[in-house]
Amino acid sequence: MGIVVNLDDQRKKPSALDRLGTLIEDDMKAVNQEIIKRMHSPVSLIPELAGHIIAAGGKRLRPMLTLAATKLCGHTGNRQILLATCIEFIHTATLLHDDVVDESELRRGSESANALWGNQASVLVGDFLFSRSFELMVEDGSLDVLKILSSASAILAEGEVMQLLTANDTETSESAYLDVIESKTAILFAAACELGAIIGERPTAEREALRAYGQNLGVAFQVIDDVLDYHAKEESLGKTIGDDFREGKVTLPVILAFRRGNDEEREFWRRTIEDMTQEPGDLARAQGLLEKHGALDDAVERARHYGAIAKDALGLFPESEIKQALLDVVDFCIERAN
Amino acid sequence: MGIVVNLDDQRKKPSALDRLGTLIEDDMKAVNQEIIKRMHSPVSLIPELAGHIIAAGGKRLRPMLTLAATKLCGHTGNRQILLATCIEFIHTATLLHDDVVDESELRRGSESANALWGNQASVLVGDFLFSRSFELMVEDGSLDVLKILSSASAILAEGEVMQLLTANDTETSESAYLDVIESKTAILFAAACELGAIIGERPTAEREALRAYGQNLGVAFQVIDDVLDYHAKEESLGKTIGDDFREGKVTLPVILAFRRGNDEEREFWRRTIEDMTQEPGDLARAQGLLEKHGALDDAVERARHYGAIAKDALGLFPESEIKQALLDVVDFCIERAN
Repeated sequence: MGIVVNLDDQRKKPSALDRLGTLIEDDMKAVNQEIIKRMHSPVSLIPELAGHIIAAGGKRLRPMLTLAATKLCGHTGNRQILLATCIEFIHTATLLHDDVVDESELRRGSESANALWGNQASVLVGDFLFSRSFELMVEDGSLDVLKILSSASAILAEGEVMQLLTANDTETSESAYLDVIESKTAILFAAACELGAIIGERPTAEREALRAYGQNLGVAFQVIDDVLDYHAKEESLGKTIGDDFREGKVTLPVILAFRRGNDEEREFWRRTIEDMTQEPGDLARAQGLLEKHGALDDAVERARHYGAIAKDALGLFPESEIKQALLDVVDFCIERAN
Repeated sequence: MGIVVNLDDQRKKPSALDRLGTLIEDDMKAVNQEIIKRMHSPVSLIPELAGHIIAAGGKRLRPMLTLAATKLCGHTGNRQILLATCIEFIHTATLLHDDVVDESELRRGSESANALWGNQASVLVGDFLFSRSFELMVEDGSLDVLKILSSASAILAEGEVMQLLTANDTETSESAYLDVIESKTAILFAAACELGAIIGERPTAEREALRAYGQNLGVAFQVIDDVLDYHAKEESLGKTIGDDFREGKVTLPVILAFRRGNDEEREFWRRTIEDMTQEPGDLARAQGLLEKHGALDDAVERARHYGAIAKDALGLFPESEIKQALLDVVDFCIERAN
């Protein structure tokens, strides 16, 4: 696959994400401090467990988007610090609840909170972070913000339930898959970006533009995530290859390969994904079938489609360093393999 | 134990809760309709699962408190309908997440959502209801209300985590137990009642009075719940007797019996609650030890103390039917055995 050929090059020079990070460096430091401060609780297991999953890091892409969108909208105050923290807390709560859902052994390269502390603690600390994020929104005091984030949270939960329902169903359509990822992933990207326009008190058209940027970037991001689950090196991805396969998740690569496959191949997908009867060598066979049908490459093509929409959505905004960084991040999310 | 002697009498005449229910009958009907309407989602598993746990019923005590407190405060509009629905959604989300926590087989007399649909669905539908409750608050539009309920939700989650940490620890102190139940149970009772004063736009003293009423009623309610877990008939309680014992929860009856017990008895508690090595006959032995040390009767006495504080808190309000019903509900919660 073309998308990883130039990995070594990317490691030598700063990535688009690094460049975006540099432009919002001070704000991001403030957000990191706010995260530590606001996850505090006298119940020490809470900061301990939340700290584990937050420190494990990830790219903090969602709060970065809020900060960058705010900068794009020319705001010079500091509301974005608290609200970017909200976004990260909602995302972290989702990860903690996903651990229960996914029974994944490895999250972002370290042992999952769930594996270390158990299902119960993951659920409850997730609940705490989620409640805390609403406390922070109330502190910010904007009903507009509260409306966007409470609605995004409800849709996010709907998306997670939809995903549960499509699991193990090899006949899931591409459109049902899209519904799931629009809800479970893209909605929070959309909200994270829209916040920038609200904080900057920009007109509706710019709110909608930033929302569309986030929404389409989120779809592209998730499609690529699903591609990487069959493809990336474990050390660069930070999660076990084949997680989705082992859990019987029906993601875009599988949907494409299933529909393009012959009877015998479909039987394979049904046995492994639907009946969950998996044997050694099955993951390799799955990867072979994805390769045979060009399912990964074509999934990346689909992601590029959404990426293109995301980039056009920013057309309204005048050229600037931060706008260019936001455009480049779209390509980064699609071309990343780490 | 005295508290169940007059059960048959209670069944013949309307209980204090029935009388309270009659006074807020129209509002409660509206709340029940609102619950059905607002738990709707195009993802049909959500209303299905949420409907299961909501229909299983329970007494809807928390939303009733919001309605009654609103009436006590003389409000004649209808904001209380939406906000009582919020309270029930937060409570239901907690029940769904508790199912993961508790692995309880039986909730309110029917199979738990968790047993029927699995951990994952319980967590995610709980998340949906929780998010939806914030959407409803935003619709109501009061930052005061949002502040109270977001803070209550965070404290509630802290309480659940604390409970997790005291599980299996026979040396848990009565004060640590109180901290847990003040957070995990009483805080939502307090918020439910305080909402009445906010909706009725009453002065701070009345807000505080209603909050104190709810807080102390909530503590008494939870202590009695913990007593009933060792005591009530299964059919009248709607949950399996001995759930707490089997899960190694350290509740007030156990705390009292452990501290009053001799070495051999403490060894028994350590084996069953701490090491979770339980044999047939152990629950009966536990009940025998609680009886021997008067632990259940004395726990009920403790509950009466909080009940008395709850009743005095309402002293500010002039006499009325609804006030009397709220006072009587305190006794009902303490004397109930069904």
